[in-house]
Amino acid sequence: MHELREQCGICGVSGHPQASYLAYLGLFSLQHRGQESAGIVSCDAGKMNIQKGMGLVNDVFSPNDFSALSGDLAIGHTRYSTTGGSHPENAQPLMVSYRHGQMALAHNGNLVNSDELRYNLEAKGSIFQTTVDSEIIVHLLAREAEPLVERALASVLSQVKGSYCLVMIKDGKLFAVRDVYGFRPLVLGRLGDAHVVASESCAFDLWGAQYVREIEPGEIVVIDKGEIRSSHLPPVKHRAHCVFELIYFARPDSLVFGLPVQEVRHAFGATLSKEHPADADLVIAVPDSGNCAALGYSQESGIPFAFGFTRNHYVGRTFIDPLQSDRDLGVKIKLNPVRQTLEGKRVVIVDDSIVRGTTTKRLISLLRDAGAAEVHLRISSPPYTWPCYYGVDTPMRSRLIASEKTIEEIGDFLHADSLGYLSQSGMLGAIKGVQPQMEPADFCCACFDGNYPAGKCFSAAKEPKKEG
Amino acid sequence: MHELREQCGICGVSGHPQASYLAYLGLFSLQHRGQESAGIVSCDAGKMNIQKGMGLVNDVFSPNDFSALSGDLAIGHTRYSTTGGSHPENAQPLMVSYRHGQMALAHNGNLVNSDELRYNLEAKGSIFQTTVDSEIIVHLLAREAEPLVERALASVLSQVKGSYCLVMIKDGKLFAVRDVYGFRPLVLGRLGDAHVVASESCAFDLWGAQYVREIEPGEIVVIDKGEIRSSHLPPVKHRAHCVFELIYFARPDSLVFGLPVQEVRHAFGATLSKEHPADADLVIAVPDSGNCAALGYSQESGIPFAFGFTRNHYVGRTFIDPLQSDRDLGVKIKLNPVRQTLEGKRVVIVDDSIVRGTTTKRLISLLRDAGAAEVHLRISSPPYTWPCYYGVDTPMRSRLIASEKTIEEIGDFLHADSLGYLSQSGMLGAIKGVQPQMEPADFCCACFDGNYPAGKCFSAAKEPKKEG
Amino acid sequence: MHELREQCGICGVSGHPQASYLAYLGLFSLQHRGQESAGIVSCDAGKMNIQKGMGLVNDVFSPNDFSALSGDLAIGHTRYSTTGGSHPENAQPLMVSYRHGQMALAHNGNLVNSDELRYNLEAKGSIFQTTVDSEIIVHLLAREAEPLVERALASVLSQVKGSYCLVMIKDGKLFAVRDVYGFRPLVLGRLGDAHVVASESCAFDLWGAQYVREIEPGEIVVIDKGEIRSSHLPPVKHRAHCVFELIYFARPDSLVFGLPVQEVRHAFGATLSKEHPADADLVIAVPDSGNCAALGYSQESGIPFAFGFTRNHYVGRTFIDPLQSDRDLGVKIKLNPVRQTLEGKRVVIVDDSIVRGTTTKRLISLLRDAGAAEVHLRISSPPYTWPCYYGVDTPMRSRLIASEKTIEEIGDFLHADSLGYLSQSGMLGAIKGVQPQMEPADFCCACFDGNYPAGKCFSAAKEPKKEG
Amino acid sequence: MHELREQCGICGVSGHPQASYLAYLGLFSLQHRGQESAGIVSCDAGKMNIQKGMGLVNDVFSPNDFSALSGDLAIGHTRYSTTGGSHPENAQPLMVSYRHGQMALAHNGNLVNSDELRYNLEAKGSIFQTTVDSEIIVHLLAREAEPLVERALASVLSQVKGSYCLVMIKDGKLFAVRDVYGFRPLVLGRLGDAHVVASESCAFDLWGAQYVREIEPGEIVVIDKGEIRSSHLPPVKHRAHCVFELIYFARPDSLVFGLPVQEVRHAFGATLSKEHPADADLVIAVPDSGNCAALGYSQESGIPFAFGFTRNHYVGRTFIDPLQSDRDLGVKIKLNPVRQTLEGKRVVIVDDSIVRGTTTKRLISLLRDAGAAEVHLRISSPPYTWPCYYGVDTPMRSRLIASEKTIEEIGDFLHADSLGYLSQSGMLGAIKGVQPQMEPADFCCACFDGNYPAGKCFSAAKEPKKEG
Repeated sequence: MHELREQCGICGVSGHPQASYLAYLGLFSLQHRGQESAGIVSCDAGKMNIQKGMGLVNDVFSPNDFSALSGDLAIGHTRYSTTGGSHPENAQPLMVSYRHGQMALAHNGNLVNSDELRYNLEAKGSIFQTTVDSEIIVHLLAREAEPLVERALASVLSQVKGSYCLVMIKDGKLFAVRDVYGFRPLVLGRLGDAHVVASESCAFDLWGAQYVREIEPGEIVVIDKGEIRSSHLPPVKHRAHCVFELIYFARPDSLVFGLPVQEVRHAFGATLSKEHPADADLVIAVPDSGNCAALGYSQESGIPFAFGFTRNHYVGRTFIDPLQSDRDLGVKIKLNPVRQTLEGKRVVIVDDSIVRGTTTKRLISLLRDAGAAEVHLRISSPPYTWPCYYGVDTPMRSRLIASEKTIEEIGDFLHADSLGYLSQSGMLGAIKGVQPQMEPADFCCACFDGNYPAGKCFSAAKEPKKEG
Repeated sequence: MHELREQCGICGVSGHPQASYLAYLGLFSLQHRGQESAGIVSCDAGKMNIQKGMGLVNDVFSPNDFSALSGDLAIGHTRYSTTGGSHPENAQPLMVSYRHGQMALAHNGNLVNSDELRYNLEAKGSIFQTTVDSEIIVHLLAREAEPLVERALASVLSQVKGSYCLVMIKDGKLFAVRDVYGFRPLVLGRLGDAHVVASESCAFDLWGAQYVREIEPGEIVVIDKGEIRSSHLPPVKHRAHCVFELIYFARPDSLVFGLPVQEVRHAFGATLSKEHPADADLVIAVPDSGNCAALGYSQESGIPFAFGFTRNHYVGRTFIDPLQSDRDLGVKIKLNPVRQTLEGKRVVIVDDSIVRGTTTKRLISLLRDAGAAEVHLRISSPPYTWPCYYGVDTPMRSRLIASEKTIEEIGDFLHADSLGYLSQSGMLGAIKGVQPQMEPADFCCACFDGNYPAGKCFSAAKEPKKEG
Repeated sequence: MHELREQCGICGVSGHPQASYLAYLGLFSLQHRGQESAGIVSCDAGKMNIQKGMGLVNDVFSPNDFSALSGDLAIGHTRYSTTGGSHPENAQPLMVSYRHGQMALAHNGNLVNSDELRYNLEAKGSIFQTTVDSEIIVHLLAREAEPLVERALASVLSQVKGSYCLVMIKDGKLFAVRDVYGFRPLVLGRLGDAHVVASESCAFDLWGAQYVREIEPGEIVVIDKGEIRSSHLPPVKHRAHCVFELIYFARPDSLVFGLPVQEVRHAFGATLSKEHPADADLVIAVPDSGNCAALGYSQESGIPFAFGFTRNHYVGRTFIDPLQSDRDLGVKIKLNPVRQTLEGKRVVIVDDSIVRGTTTKRLISLLRDAGAAEVHLRISSPPYTWPCYYGVDTPMRSRLIASEKTIEEIGDFLHADSLGYLSQSGMLGAIKGVQPQMEPADFCCACFDGNYPAGKCFSAAKEPKKEG
Repeated sequence: MHELREQCGICGVSGHPQASYLAYLGLFSLQHRGQESAGIVSCDAGKMNIQKGMGLVNDVFSPNDFSALSGDLAIGHTRYSTTGGSHPENAQPLMVSYRHGQMALAHNGNLVNSDELRYNLEAKGSIFQTTVDSEIIVHLLAREAEPLVERALASVLSQVKGSYCLVMIKDGKLFAVRDVYGFRPLVLGRLGDAHVVASESCAFDLWGAQYVREIEPGEIVVIDKGEIRSSHLPPVKHRAHCVFELIYFARPDSLVFGLPVQEVRHAFGATLSKEHPADADLVIAVPDSGNCAALGYSQESGIPFAFGFTRNHYVGRTFIDPLQSDRDLGVKIKLNPVRQTLEGKRVVIVDDSIVRGTTTKRLISLLRDAGAAEVHLRISSPPYTWPCYYGVDTPMRSRLIASEKTIEEIGDFLHADSLGYLSQSGMLGAIKGVQPQMEPADFCCACFDGNYPAGKCFSAAKEPKKEG
């Protein structure tokens, strides 16, 4: 039900006899990062195999696929679900043949100069069969005379601006690359003799792999016959980790940017409680996005936590609504307020963010219908005001409620009795509280403050992009 | 992941132009009561229409079905999922033609004398095409000369023993019937001019209907052209509400037996904390079955509540496990322990019950792997020792861990640092605490104490039955 | 494209380790007799297994089904496709449990007193879950005290009127029964030590089985542990083989009523040529229903045979026609006239029958558009004037063109340059020419002459029935 | 069941409001040219839409697709079915974006210098996402600075060798191109104000379009806002129409190379009868590939034609054969010999060609089992000895029975009583008999005589290619 959609999840396995099956499990763990399409490329003695398609991981793969996806090397990708429609050709990984042989690549992030790069490539005779940034990177690689990918990459990535985490297969090697800002997470681990990479460490837990470290911003890791080596792109002054990974995108059981996500969210809620206390009987969460922060708010404030909504786990992505008479039905079928718990109570409801505000408004209305005496809305992040150009599918600015209304107007619009947002300094302070080495300057907060560390999209007219 | 499977969910709508669509929404709300099959019969000016099939509600119905399921009267049914296999002929409602016309019927519960009834019916020339109890009830009705169903029912139900909630359509009327013990829940509501019934009140919330009252034990309700009338079967001394509905089966947002389920579970947890305190750092739940009780335990004990597991919402009923090498994978893919939260902590983990013990054992092992220093298991119900004959799919007695082992042995088997079960008196006392009119004698606790208020199954050799 | 739809195909195998797989192959061979649903019941050491569903044989069965359908005894059924809709509950075989155990039964034919029988059964307390005649027969059996099916059948079948071929499983025995008139075909064969029965001998060819003989009209065959025995119902004066099996329904490679179907159709065409010669350049067939007769017409008349239409084998039962602008599209997409062959030619076109006339009219129009100079229509059977009550899905009488118009009016309506029907005496004479023992009185020609050997349907108001 | 698989079917529509729906119907008519995948690109005011996928036309398109495929311009493609596996990325048309905008292209044929072209393109930095020749042509176009496609094409096609028919969309124009040899058919027609092109004229019949003429060898047709203009590639000395289109690939109701296919096949059969008479009772065809020639043989020889096999139209591309015990089952389930017609007869069986010989051997064996006294095999083309490099999926040379055995040895291997092939001169003479302007030199007979008019594949090691 969340109104923001990241992105993509990527993973890679090198040196394990069931590499493609592990990639499949990894995609399961990363499914929250993308539900539109899924794909795996494996490599068996130099021969690559691919299976990809639209839908959830479980829709795309069937048991027989893994014997076809043979080899001890594999990469996987999941892509988020647009409302607009399905474009099977955009499913990743991309597998191509070029002057130096076969290559496969999967990408999480968003390039801000993709239009310019594409224009230049087409001018030189390239054709494009997809609209994903991965294809641009592959084209740039194909135009390098240097056959060694790790060298060619240094040249290619100097031309590319924006956010990217890449996993690639070439010449039987696994490559893992992260942009110099470190916008998106990418972690490195070990599973016995095998090396593994994934967007989030929760994939390691399912594999039973050990977390080793983050792939560093600007690092190009090559895993080749059990050996691992790194080279580095020229560094920038500050990292720019996406703070929204901590707020919402990442799974609470992941380590992201070296930070324990659940603990960070709990700290956001605690700080929020100090910044915006409430005189109330209960603290409830919008499940599941507000869970950790709500618990932090409750434990800091002493106001008891309660389960305010029952979530219906059987509602898939669609249900039939022929009448369309009741606008709340789509929300209510997934989240039903627990009348017995709420009746007559002054309720603090905690969520991670407000984007358009429409869902939040319906939830508040449901709480009042269920008998809540007062509804105090608390948001565990600052007002979401600016579009993201680094890999999040944000609505147009004019549809971001915080870019059009004051906080007071938002509260009125939502019919909340009070509304409090976590401040940016509070947010960054809470992170530092969990991990003192982390500096405010290490984070991209562009969606809150409009400071874009890697620039905006080249084409001024361009909407925030939608590729993972 | 729960090892017990109830049952069925039933609902009915009379006097609403979108009766079948409301039944569809109702089944969505009742989906937790049965995932094997779903079906709806509607009645339009005396003509009945049916759609049923194997799978979840969303698998069985498509948008076009509702124009075919016309009429202002409808009943719906969901059936639980057996491991054994799919038997499409057992999907309900049953729609038959007999001497007095067409009739449709759906049933939640289990008859204990079904073998005897079936034997007698076959001896008189009846044929059976299913193995569900509904067919027995229909046969009995078909052998009554009395054409008026409400009169015929009194005779039929005097022959039938066990638990049953029924919804029926006959002659354009909606019938709702509950056995004299009131084992299973069945509630009555209003939606504008329409009358509605459902297994649980959470269906009313989705409909926007008002809760009126429970259908009483032994009550036969007839809803006929907007009029509602009742007759009553001869009463028994004590009701016998299934206490496990409160412990696990019902949705926390439902009112069941007039009791707010979430509050009751919270009270179970609080009482459990008093009966079995623990010296620990955190209280966590097995999601979602242990959520409410864990919160109650935490709030009573003062030990902080935490989210100990992250639940993967994208895992459907199956995932591919070709290796079968890792027995824990099936658990781990759904529930991943949050290492950062658990590491070095003494943890109280709360669940509603232990059936075979295998899943619980794996969860405890996962917690230890994730760094928990101590694991104290608390169960918000007494030891599950006896099979249910009244509508729950219980394993054979020999597979119920509590019927084979002492509590100490169970704790050892599970590798828990300590184990505490809520006592039966504590459980019933907690209920009374929430609703003082409720007496211990009003509940069936057969699975805990072996006292079967409506007898056991006729056939001594018979396994606990599996029909909803 | 034919406007008449029979019926059903049945088969049975006893004493073969792959009985259910052979039944599957048999249903493939009998698929032309019914495309709506398919089903198989097997029997393994007294335990019965069933798989049935809507659609073609290939839609209903998957490779894994045959290990579940274990046992050396099996029966199969295919049902024809109604335009009306799908009623999964009507798929056969029916498998029921009754006083004497489990039984499975499949039926080809139509009972004329089914309403009366059903009324009486319901009055005695029977319930009906389907609308197929098989269920009536099963109910009658269930009311017999006699446990031995072969004895009980004699009593049951004395109450039943109309056409029926049955295959049944009970007590590990295979039963095959044919009504006293022998309306529908049913043949007996051997495959090594196994005994087999099928509606048509073409199933034997696929099995590699040997044709033994027809099951005789009124014969009850029991195959029990490799032994075969027969009993007989009281005989009637004349058999009444459905002559339309020879004209259209049966496959040309089958032996039906002991007659080689393709040869009989060839003889119909030859006789038609003598009765209705034409001054023409080419003889063409409506594929495939007119093929054999057209060749007979050509070879008797000396007018060369040609392929006048190309049939598109890739058109399934549906294609998308959003415009509905071109009424001929549905015909044209399946059959395209071969302009180069037809242009400027005087053409005799042969089909087996005219029912409503609409398709024929379109075909003639297509021939003229493709340049045919003259179109002489010849029909290898008499005018189809009366509905069938014995197992063919005939339109209402008022929609049968021959019951509303004279032959001259039909020719005008169809825009044929001439029209000739084979006479009834010519038709029966042609049969006798192929097989001299066959007498005209041995055939049911009710659809041509209105003489119904087993009466009409009991309910005067009743439309011709639609069950197989 | 034929052992040779062409190729592809292509079609295009310009200037019709239902262009994509017409393309869909066209693909239905061309389905015999390719059953692996199907696709359509439409163009609506400059915006292109695509729908493609694996399977038959009916599998790939659903009714809602045509509103998405809006516009008055569309091209369609069907691709043949390999046994090897499914490669969704190879489905056509290809739709790409390049320096001059968007373009879509579909191709029927095979380039012999594709390896060389691909090598050169990759060396210049091109990447390949498919293995189809279309992608090579698109890359070549993308490297032309000339924005006008019709000019760029002249340059591109001068680099390309082999067989190709192309339909393309660019800048709202429809392009149709045929190689200078005219290997594959491509015809031009009109439907009211719309212009249409298709591989075979049978598509025109379904559309109700008028046949105008062939696209000439070497012609580039541009259809632009209702105007049609042509340019021409430098001509070669002789055309090289694929004679196998006349023998087998094309539908009998098509005009191909200006020749009426059915009449040509009839003439092949008549000539075959003169070259290889037989003392026999019946002439039968292998359905449907031998139908027309068998009729020609019969009518020339005076030996009566008969239907020797009944074809089961319900067998799709697969049926379940778990036993694999009976090698003939796959043949027998599709074609059952008609014992009553064949028994004791001396039979001439006519087919269009023998490739590996395995299927033919089984058919002859089935005829003998069905009682044929003698089996005389007649083939309406010369021995198939050389692989095709121009668009037919031929087996390796070593598996072509005629390249390994003498005719006598083939006859022995097949257990035929006699075997006769149509001579190459007889074949070409028969064509000239139908259309006197046609010269032997106008045809490619490489599969019979090894004379390859456009050379063999560049890579000596290369197997005959498999793309359409």
